[in-house]
Amino acid sequence: MSKITLHYLDKSRAFRVLWLLEHLGLEYNVVPYVRENNRAPEELKKIHPLGRSPILEIKDEQTGKTKIVTESGYIFQYILENYDQEKILSLKDPEQAEQVQYYLHYAEGSLQPPLLMEYVYSLAAQSPGPFPLSYLVRGVLDKISGAYSRGEVKNQIDYLETEVSKNEGYFVGGQFSAADILLSFPLQMAFLRGFAQAKDYPHIKKWLESITSEKSYSAAKDSAAQYES
Amino acid sequence: MSKITLHYLDKSRAFRVLWLLEHLGLEYNVVPYVRENNRAPEELKKIHPLGRSPILEIKDEQTGKTKIVTESGYIFQYILENYDQEKILSLKDPEQAEQVQYYLHYAEGSLQPPLLMEYVYSLAAQSPGPFPLSYLVRGVLDKISGAYSRGEVKNQIDYLETEVSKNEGYFVGGQFSAADILLSFPLQMAFLRGFAQAKDYPHIKKWLESITSEKSYSAAKDSAAQYES
Repeated sequence: MSKITLHYLDKSRAFRVLWLLEHLGLEYNVVPYVRENNRAPEELKKIHPLGRSPILEIKDEQTGKTKIVTESGYIFQYILENYDQEKILSLKDPEQAEQVQYYLHYAEGSLQPPLLMEYVYSLAAQSPGPFPLSYLVRGVLDKISGAYSRGEVKNQIDYLETEVSKNEGYFVGGQFSAADILLSFPLQMAFLRGFAQAKDYPHIKKWLESITSEKSYSAAKDSAAQYES
Repeated sequence: MSKITLHYLDKSRAFRVLWLLEHLGLEYNVVPYVRENNRAPEELKKIHPLGRSPILEIKDEQTGKTKIVTESGYIFQYILENYDQEKILSLKDPEQAEQVQYYLHYAEGSLQPPLLMEYVYSLAAQSPGPFPLSYLVRGVLDKISGAYSRGEVKNQIDYLETEVSKNEGYFVGGQFSAADILLSFPLQMAFLRGFAQAKDYPHIKKWLESITSEKSYSAAKDSAAQYES
Protein backbone atom coordinates (compact mmCIF):
# COMPACT_ATOMS: atom_id res chain seq x y z
CA MET A 1 0.00 0.00 0.00
CA SER A 2 1.05 3.54 -0.58
CA LYS A 3 -0.05 6.77 0.97
CA ILE A 4 -0.87 9.59 -1.41
CA THR A 5 -0.45 13.23 -0.40
CA LEU A 6 -1.45 16.06 -2.70
CA HIS A 7 0.27 19.40 -2.18
CA TYR A 8 -2.56 21.68 -3.21
CA LEU A 9 -2.26 25.35 -4.09
CA ASP A 10 -5.49 27.36 -4.21
CA LYS A 11 -6.67 28.55 -7.65
CA SER A 12 -4.26 26.26 -9.42
CA ARG A 13 -4.06 23.27 -11.74
CA ALA A 14 -4.07 21.06 -8.64
CA PHE A 15 -7.87 20.74 -8.64
CA ARG A 16 -7.71 18.32 -11.56
CA VAL A 17 -5.53 15.93 -9.59
CA LEU A 18 -8.04 16.04 -6.73
CA TRP A 19 -10.78 15.17 -9.23
CA LEU A 20 -8.72 12.33 -10.69
CA LEU A 21 -8.08 10.86 -7.22
CA GLU A 22 -11.77 11.17 -6.33
CA HIS A 23 -12.91 9.51 -9.54
CA LEU A 24 -10.60 6.56 -8.99
CA GLY A 25 -11.80 6.32 -5.40
CA LEU A 26 -8.28 6.62 -4.01
CA GLU A 27 -7.48 7.66 -0.48
CA TYR A 28 -5.37 10.75 -0.19
CA ASN A 29 -4.32 13.55 2.12
CA VAL A 30 -4.18 17.17 1.12
CA VAL A 31 -1.60 19.70 2.25
CA PRO A 32 -3.02 23.12 1.33
CA TYR A 33 -1.06 26.21 0.31
CA VAL A 34 -2.34 29.73 -0.21
CA ARG A 35 -1.05 32.13 -2.85
CA GLU A 36 1.01 35.15 -1.78
CA ASN A 37 0.84 38.08 -4.20
CA ASN A 38 -0.79 35.77 -6.70
CA ARG A 39 2.19 33.38 -6.70
CA ALA A 40 2.90 30.06 -4.99
CA PRO A 41 4.43 30.52 -1.52
CA GLU A 42 8.11 29.76 -0.90
CA GLU A 43 7.34 26.73 1.32
CA LEU A 44 6.35 24.72 -1.75
CA LYS A 45 10.04 24.74 -2.72
CA LYS A 46 10.73 22.53 0.28
CA ILE A 47 8.72 19.81 -1.45
CA HIS A 48 10.08 20.33 -4.99
CA PRO A 49 12.69 22.89 -6.09
CA LEU A 50 10.41 24.41 -8.74
CA GLY A 51 7.91 25.34 -6.03
CA ARG A 52 4.86 24.85 -8.21
CA SER A 53 1.62 22.96 -7.64
CA PRO A 54 0.30 20.27 -8.05
CA ILE A 55 2.86 18.03 -6.40
CA LEU A 56 2.07 14.46 -5.49
CA GLU A 57 3.97 12.78 -2.69
CA ILE A 58 3.70 9.02 -2.67
CA LYS A 59 4.96 7.08 0.30
CA ASP A 60 5.44 3.36 -0.02
CA GLU A 61 4.30 2.09 3.37
CA GLN A 62 6.35 -1.08 3.10
CA THR A 63 9.72 0.42 2.22
CA GLY A 64 9.08 3.86 3.75
CA LYS A 65 10.41 5.40 0.53
CA THR A 66 8.83 8.62 -0.68
CA LYS A 67 8.46 9.60 -4.31
CA ILE A 68 7.76 13.15 -5.51
CA VAL A 69 5.76 13.39 -8.74
CA THR A 70 5.25 16.71 -10.55
CA GLU A 71 3.91 18.02 -13.91
CA SER A 72 0.14 17.72 -14.27
CA GLY A 73 0.38 15.51 -17.36
CA TYR A 74 2.93 13.23 -15.75
CA ILE A 75 1.01 13.02 -12.45
CA PHE A 76 -1.98 11.83 -14.48
CA GLN A 77 0.14 9.30 -16.38
CA TYR A 78 1.66 8.03 -13.15
CA ILE A 79 -1.68 7.65 -11.33
CA LEU A 80 -3.31 5.94 -14.32
CA GLU A 81 -0.44 3.49 -14.70
CA ASN A 82 -0.28 2.63 -11.04
CA TYR A 83 -3.84 2.98 -9.75
CA ASP A 84 -6.27 2.57 -12.66
CA GLN A 85 -6.11 -1.20 -12.91
CA GLU A 86 -9.60 -1.40 -14.33
CA LYS A 87 -8.77 1.26 -16.90
CA ILE A 88 -11.89 3.27 -16.28
CA LEU A 89 -10.05 6.54 -16.93
CA SER A 90 -7.14 5.34 -19.06
CA LEU A 91 -9.50 3.21 -21.21
CA LYS A 92 -9.21 -0.46 -22.13
CA ASP A 93 -9.01 -0.24 -25.90
CA PRO A 94 -5.30 0.20 -26.84
CA GLU A 95 -5.93 2.89 -29.46
CA GLN A 96 -8.11 4.82 -27.04
CA ALA A 97 -5.54 4.40 -24.26
CA GLU A 98 -2.96 5.94 -26.62
CA GLN A 99 -5.29 8.81 -27.36
CA VAL A 100 -5.68 9.50 -23.62
CA GLN A 101 -1.87 9.55 -23.28
CA TYR A 102 -1.64 11.97 -26.19
CA TYR A 103 -4.02 14.41 -24.48
CA LEU A 104 -1.97 14.25 -21.27
CA HIS A 105 0.85 15.85 -23.27
CA TYR A 106 -1.36 18.06 -25.41
CA ALA A 107 -3.19 19.83 -22.57
CA GLU A 108 -0.05 21.32 -21.03
CA GLY A 109 2.22 21.33 -24.08
CA SER A 110 -0.04 22.93 -26.69
CA LEU A 111 -3.26 24.23 -25.18
CA GLN A 112 -2.02 25.98 -22.04
CA PRO A 113 0.84 28.13 -23.44
CA PRO A 114 -1.25 30.46 -25.65
CA LEU A 115 -3.93 30.63 -22.93
CA LEU A 116 -1.28 31.58 -20.38
CA MET A 117 -0.01 34.29 -22.71
CA GLU A 118 -3.51 35.70 -23.18
CA TYR A 119 -3.98 35.66 -19.41
CA VAL A 120 -0.74 37.53 -18.75
CA TYR A 121 -1.68 40.16 -21.36
CA SER A 122 -5.13 40.59 -19.87
CA LEU A 123 -3.64 41.12 -16.40
CA ALA A 124 -1.14 43.61 -17.80
CA ALA A 125 -3.82 45.48 -19.75
CA GLN A 126 -6.00 45.75 -16.64
CA SER A 127 -3.24 47.17 -14.48
CA PRO A 128 -3.91 50.78 -13.57
CA GLY A 129 -1.97 53.48 -15.36
CA PRO A 130 -2.59 57.01 -16.54
CA PHE A 131 -4.41 57.36 -19.83
CA PRO A 132 -3.03 57.46 -22.57
CA LEU A 133 -0.25 55.16 -21.38
CA SER A 134 -2.62 52.33 -20.56
CA TYR A 135 -4.41 52.95 -23.86
CA LEU A 136 -1.09 52.52 -25.59
CA VAL A 137 -0.23 49.50 -23.46
CA ARG A 138 -3.48 47.85 -24.43
CA GLY A 139 -2.65 48.56 -28.06
CA VAL A 140 0.77 46.97 -27.76
CA LEU A 141 -0.58 43.92 -25.99
CA ASP A 142 -3.37 43.61 -28.49
CA LYS A 143 -0.84 43.58 -31.31
CA ILE A 144 1.30 40.89 -29.66
CA SER A 145 -1.75 38.82 -28.86
CA GLY A 146 -2.97 39.25 -32.43
CA ALA A 147 0.37 38.16 -33.84
CA TYR A 148 0.43 34.89 -31.97
CA SER A 149 -1.64 33.81 -29.00
CA ARG A 150 -5.17 34.94 -29.91
CA GLY A 151 -5.11 33.09 -33.22
CA GLU A 152 -3.44 30.11 -31.60
CA VAL A 153 -6.12 29.88 -28.89
CA LYS A 154 -8.78 29.88 -31.61
CA ASN A 155 -6.86 27.28 -33.61
CA GLN A 156 -6.68 25.00 -30.57
CA ILE A 157 -10.27 25.39 -29.41
CA ASP A 158 -11.65 24.95 -32.94
CA TYR A 159 -9.73 21.68 -33.09
CA LEU A 160 -11.06 20.52 -29.72
CA GLU A 161 -14.65 21.39 -30.72
CA THR A 162 -14.30 19.09 -33.71
CA GLU A 163 -12.78 16.31 -31.62
CA VAL A 164 -15.61 16.41 -29.05
CA SER A 165 -18.20 16.38 -31.81
CA LYS A 166 -16.49 13.37 -33.44
CA ASN A 167 -16.21 11.38 -30.21
CA GLU A 168 -19.80 11.36 -29.02
CA GLY A 169 -19.45 14.18 -26.55
CA TYR A 170 -16.11 13.23 -24.97
CA PHE A 171 -12.49 13.53 -26.05
CA VAL A 172 -11.78 9.83 -26.39
CA GLY A 173 -13.94 6.91 -27.41
CA GLY A 174 -17.32 8.37 -26.50
CA GLN A 175 -16.70 7.97 -22.79
CA PHE A 176 -15.40 9.85 -19.79
CA SER A 177 -11.61 9.55 -19.44
CA ALA A 178 -8.63 11.24 -17.81
CA ALA A 179 -8.31 13.40 -20.95
CA ASP A 180 -11.62 15.07 -20.08
CA ILE A 181 -10.46 15.86 -16.55
CA LEU A 182 -7.15 17.32 -17.71
CA LEU A 183 -8.73 19.39 -20.49
CA SER A 184 -11.49 20.74 -18.23
CA PHE A 185 -9.36 23.41 -16.58
CA PRO A 186 -7.94 25.18 -19.65
CA LEU A 187 -11.32 25.13 -21.40
CA GLN A 188 -13.27 26.34 -18.36
CA MET A 189 -10.72 29.13 -17.96
CA ALA A 190 -10.83 30.04 -21.66
CA PHE A 191 -14.58 30.66 -21.39
CA LEU A 192 -14.49 32.25 -17.92
CA ARG A 193 -11.76 34.70 -18.90
CA GLY A 194 -13.37 35.52 -22.21
CA PHE A 195 -10.60 34.18 -24.48
CA ALA A 196 -13.28 32.18 -26.28
CA GLN A 197 -17.07 32.38 -26.20
CA ALA A 198 -18.96 29.30 -25.07
CA LYS A 199 -21.72 30.09 -27.59
CA ASP A 200 -19.25 29.56 -30.45
CA TYR A 201 -18.40 26.09 -29.18
CA PRO A 202 -21.66 24.22 -28.51
CA HIS A 203 -20.04 20.78 -28.30
CA ILE A 204 -17.44 21.89 -25.77
CA LYS A 205 -20.14 23.74 -23.81
CA LYS A 206 -22.25 20.60 -23.63
CA TRP A 207 -19.20 18.50 -22.79
CA LEU A 208 -18.34 20.80 -19.88
CA GLU A 209 -21.89 20.53 -18.54
CA SER A 210 -21.76 16.78 -18.90
CA ILE A 211 -18.40 16.13 -17.24
CA THR A 212 -19.03 18.53 -14.38
CA SER A 213 -22.17 16.56 -13.56
CA GLU A 214 -20.00 13.54 -12.69
CA LYS A 215 -20.31 12.66 -9.01
CA SER A 216 -16.53 12.77 -8.65
CA TYR A 217 -16.55 16.42 -9.76
CA SER A 218 -18.91 17.44 -6.95
CA ALA A 219 -16.90 15.37 -4.48
CA ALA A 220 -13.68 17.06 -5.60
CA LYS A 221 -15.35 20.48 -5.43
CA ASP A 222 -16.51 19.75 -1.88
CA SER A 223 -13.05 18.57 -0.92
CA ALA A 224 -11.42 21.60 -2.57
CA ALA A 225 -13.81 24.13 -1.00
CA GLN A 226 -11.99 24.01 2.33
CA TYR A 227 -8.64 24.81 0.65
CA GLU A 228 -9.80 27.57 -1.67
CA SER A 229 -9.67 31.05 -0.16
CA MET B 1 7.22 -3.74 -39.72
CA SER B 2 6.11 -0.17 -39.85
CA LYS B 3 7.19 2.72 -42.00
CA ILE B 4 7.96 5.94 -40.19
CA THR B 5 7.51 9.32 -41.86
CA LEU B 6 8.47 12.54 -40.14
CA HIS B 7 6.72 15.72 -41.27
CA TYR B 8 9.52 18.17 -40.70
CA LEU B 9 9.19 21.94 -40.52
CA ASP B 10 12.40 23.96 -40.77
CA LYS B 11 13.58 25.80 -37.63
CA SER B 12 11.19 23.86 -35.44
CA ARG B 13 11.02 21.37 -32.61
CA ALA B 14 11.03 18.61 -35.24
CA PHE B 15 14.84 18.35 -35.18
CA ARG B 16 14.71 16.51 -31.86
CA VAL B 17 12.55 13.75 -33.34
CA LEU B 18 15.06 13.35 -36.17
CA TRP B 19 17.80 13.02 -33.57
CA LEU B 20 15.77 10.47 -31.59
CA LEU B 21 15.15 8.37 -34.71
CA GLU B 22 18.84 8.56 -35.66
CA HIS B 23 19.98 7.54 -32.19
CA LEU B 24 17.72 4.50 -32.18
CA GLY B 25 18.94 3.59 -35.66
CA LEU B 26 15.41 3.59 -37.08
CA GLU B 27 14.59 3.94 -40.74
CA TYR B 28 12.46 6.91 -41.60
CA ASN B 29 11.37 9.20 -44.39
CA VAL B 30 11.20 12.95 -44.09
CA VAL B 31 8.59 15.20 -45.69
CA PRO B 32 9.98 18.73 -45.42
CA TYR B 33 7.97 21.95 -45.00
CA VAL B 34 9.25 25.51 -45.15
CA ARG B 35 7.93 28.36 -43.00
CA GLU B 36 5.84 31.10 -44.59
CA ASN B 37 5.98 34.45 -42.78
CA ASN B 38 7.64 32.66 -39.91
CA ARG B 39 4.68 30.27 -39.45
CA ALA B 40 3.99 26.70 -40.52
CA PRO B 41 2.45 26.48 -44.02
CA GLU B 42 -1.21 25.57 -44.47
CA GLU B 43 -0.40 22.21 -46.08
CA LEU B 44 0.60 20.81 -42.70
CA LYS B 45 -3.08 20.98 -41.74
CA LYS B 46 -3.74 18.24 -44.26
CA ILE B 47 -1.72 15.90 -42.07
CA HIS B 48 -3.08 17.06 -38.70
CA PRO B 49 -5.71 19.76 -38.07
CA LEU B 50 -3.45 21.77 -35.75
CA GLY B 51 -0.97 22.21 -38.60
CA ARG B 52 2.09 22.15 -36.36
CA SER B 53 5.35 20.25 -36.60
CA PRO B 54 6.68 17.68 -35.67
CA ILE B 55 4.14 15.14 -36.87
CA LEU B 56 4.96 11.46 -37.08
CA GLU B 57 3.08 9.26 -39.51
CA ILE B 58 3.40 5.56 -38.84
CA LYS B 59 2.17 3.09 -41.36
CA ASP B 60 1.71 -0.52 -40.34
CA GLU B 61 2.90 -2.39 -43.44
CA GLN B 62 0.85 -5.48 -42.56
CA THR B 63 -2.51 -3.86 -41.98
CA GLY B 64 -1.91 -0.77 -44.12
CA LYS B 65 -3.26 1.34 -41.27
CA THR B 66 -1.72 4.75 -40.69
CA LYS B 67 -1.37 6.43 -37.33
CA ILE B 68 -0.70 10.12 -36.81
CA VAL B 69 1.30 10.99 -33.70
CA THR B 70 1.77 14.60 -32.54
CA GLU B 71 3.08 16.53 -29.50
CA SER B 72 6.86 16.34 -29.08
CA GLY B 73 6.65 14.75 -25.62
CA TYR B 74 4.12 12.18 -26.77
CA ILE B 75 6.03 11.37 -29.98
CA PHE B 76 9.04 10.63 -27.77
CA GLN B 77 6.95 8.47 -25.43
CA TYR B 78 5.44 6.59 -28.36
CA ILE B 79 8.78 5.92 -30.06
CA LEU B 80 10.43 4.82 -26.82
CA GLU B 81 7.59 2.44 -25.97
CA ASN B 82 7.45 0.90 -29.41
CA TYR B 83 11.00 1.05 -30.73
CA ASP B 84 13.42 1.23 -27.82
CA GLN B 85 13.32 -2.43 -26.86
CA GLU B 86 16.82 -2.31 -25.43
CA LYS B 87 15.95 0.75 -23.41
CA ILE B 88 19.03 2.65 -24.39
CA LEU B 89 17.17 5.97 -24.37
CA SER B 90 14.25 5.15 -22.05
CA LEU B 91 16.65 3.50 -19.56
CA LYS B 92 16.40 0.07 -17.96
CA ASP B 93 16.20 0.98 -14.29
CA PRO B 94 12.49 1.55 -13.44
CA GLU B 95 13.08 4.70 -11.37
CA GLN B 96 15.23 6.16 -14.13
CA ALA B 97 12.67 5.21 -16.76
CA GLU B 98 10.07 7.13 -14.75
CA GLN B 99 12.38 10.11 -14.55
CA VAL B 100 12.76 10.09 -18.35
CA GLN B 101 8.95 10.03 -18.69
CA TYR B 102 8.70 12.96 -16.30
CA TYR B 103 11.06 15.05 -18.43
CA LEU B 104 9.01 14.29 -21.54
CA HIS B 105 6.17 16.20 -19.88
CA TYR B 106 8.35 18.79 -18.20
CA ALA B 107 10.17 20.01 -21.34
CA GLU B 108 7.02 21.16 -23.12
CA GLY B 109 4.75 21.73 -20.13
CA SER B 110 6.98 23.80 -17.86
CA LEU B 111 10.19 24.84 -19.58
CA GLN B 112 8.94 25.93 -23.00
CA PRO B 113 6.06 28.28 -22.02
CA PRO B 114 8.12 31.02 -20.30
CA LEU B 115 10.80 30.69 -23.01
CA LEU B 116 8.14 31.12 -25.68
CA MET B 117 6.84 34.21 -23.90
CA GLU B 118 10.32 35.70 -23.72
CA TYR B 119 10.80 34.97 -27.41
CA VAL B 120 7.53 36.64 -28.41
CA TYR B 121 8.45 39.73 -26.33
CA SER B 122 11.89 39.89 -27.89
CA LEU B 123 10.38 39.76 -31.40
CA ALA B 124 7.86 42.45 -30.47
CA ALA B 125 10.52 44.67 -28.91
CA GLN B 126 12.67 44.38 -32.04
CA SER B 127 9.87 45.32 -34.41
CA PRO B 128 10.48 48.70 -36.00
CA GLY B 129 8.51 51.66 -34.71
CA PRO B 130 9.06 55.37 -34.21
CA PHE B 131 10.86 56.38 -31.05
CA PRO B 132 9.47 56.99 -28.41
CA LEU B 133 6.75 54.42 -29.13
CA SER B 134 9.18 51.57 -29.40
CA TYR B 135 10.96 52.82 -26.29
CA LEU B 136 7.65 52.66 -24.49
CA VAL B 137 6.84 49.30 -26.01
CA ARG B 138 10.11 47.91 -24.76
CA GLY B 139 9.28 49.30 -21.34
CA VAL B 140 5.88 47.61 -21.32
CA LEU B 141 7.29 44.29 -22.48
CA ASP B 142 10.08 44.50 -19.97
CA LYS B 143 7.53 44.95 -17.20
CA ILE B 144 5.44 41.99 -18.31
CA SER B 145 8.51 39.84 -18.72
CA GLY B 146 9.73 40.96 -15.29
CA ALA B 147 6.39 40.09 -13.70
CA TYR B 148 6.38 36.53 -14.92
CA SER B 149 8.46 34.94 -17.64
CA ARG B 150 11.96 36.28 -16.96
CA GLY B 151 11.92 35.07 -13.37
CA GLU B 152 10.31 31.81 -14.38
CA VAL B 153 12.99 31.12 -17.02
CA LYS B 154 15.64 31.65 -14.34
CA ASN B 155 13.74 29.43 -11.89
CA GLN B 156 13.60 26.63 -14.45
CA ILE B 157 17.19 26.84 -15.66
CA ASP B 158 18.56 27.09 -12.12
CA TYR B 159 16.67 23.88 -11.36
CA LEU B 160 18.03 22.13 -14.43
CA GLU B 161 21.60 23.21 -13.63
CA THR B 162 21.29 21.50 -10.24
CA GLU B 163 19.78 18.36 -11.80
CA VAL B 164 22.61 18.01 -14.34
CA SER B 165 25.21 18.53 -11.61
CA LYS B 166 23.52 15.85 -9.45
CA ASN B 167 23.26 13.28 -12.26
CA GLU B 168 26.85 13.10 -13.41
CA GLY B 169 26.49 15.39 -16.36
CA TYR B 170 23.16 14.13 -17.73
CA PHE B 171 19.54 14.58 -16.72
CA VAL B 172 18.86 11.01 -15.70
CA GLY B 173 21.06 8.34 -14.15
CA GLY B 174 24.41 9.65 -15.33
CA GLN B 175 23.80 8.54 -18.89
CA PHE B 176 22.46 9.82 -22.19
CA SER B 177 18.69 9.42 -22.47
CA ALA B 178 15.70 10.74 -24.39
CA ALA B 179 15.36 13.45 -21.72
CA ASP B 180 18.65 14.95 -22.89
CA ILE B 181 17.48 15.05 -26.50
CA LEU B 182 14.15 16.67 -25.63
CA LEU B 183 15.72 19.25 -23.30
CA SER B 184 18.46 20.16 -25.77
CA PHE B 185 16.31 22.48 -27.91
CA PRO B 186 14.86 24.78 -25.20
CA LEU B 187 18.25 25.09 -23.48
CA GLN B 188 20.19 25.72 -26.70
CA MET B 189 17.61 28.38 -27.63
CA ALA B 190 17.70 29.95 -24.15
CA PHE B 191 21.45 30.56 -24.54
CA LEU B 192 21.34 31.47 -28.22
CA ARG B 193 18.58 34.03 -27.74
CA GLY B 194 20.19 35.48 -24.64
CA PHE B 195 17.44 34.54 -22.16
CA ALA B 196 20.14 32.96 -20.03
CA GLN B 197 23.93 33.18 -20.13
CA ALA B 198 25.85 29.96 -20.67
CA LYS B 199 28.60 31.24 -18.35
CA ASP B 200 26.13 31.22 -15.44
CA TYR B 201 25.32 27.56 -16.03
CA PRO B 202 28.59 25.64 -16.33
CA HIS B 203 27.00 22.20 -15.90
CA ILE B 204 24.40 22.79 -18.59
CA LYS B 205 27.08 24.26 -20.87
CA LYS B 206 29.23 21.16 -20.44
CA TRP B 207 26.19 18.90 -20.89
CA LEU B 208 25.31 20.61 -24.17
CA GLU B 209 28.87 20.13 -25.43
CA SER B 210 28.77 16.51 -24.37
CA ILE B 211 25.41 15.53 -25.88
CA THR B 212 26.03 17.36 -29.15
CA SER B 213 29.19 15.30 -29.57
CA GLU B 214 27.04 12.14 -29.86
CA LYS B 215 27.37 10.58 -33.31
CA SER B 216 23.58 10.59 -33.69
CA TYR B 217 23.57 14.37 -33.28
CA SER B 218 25.92 14.87 -36.23
CA ALA B 219 23.94 12.36 -38.27
CA ALA B 220 20.69 14.20 -37.49
CA LYS B 221 22.33 17.54 -38.30
CA ASP B 222 23.50 16.16 -41.65
CA SER B 223 20.06 14.80 -42.36
CA ALA B 224 18.39 18.07 -41.32
CA ALA B 225 20.75 20.27 -43.34
CA GLN B 226 18.93 19.50 -46.58
CA TYR B 227 15.58 20.57 -45.07
CA GLU B 228 16.72 23.74 -43.33
CA SER B 229 16.56 26.86 -45.45
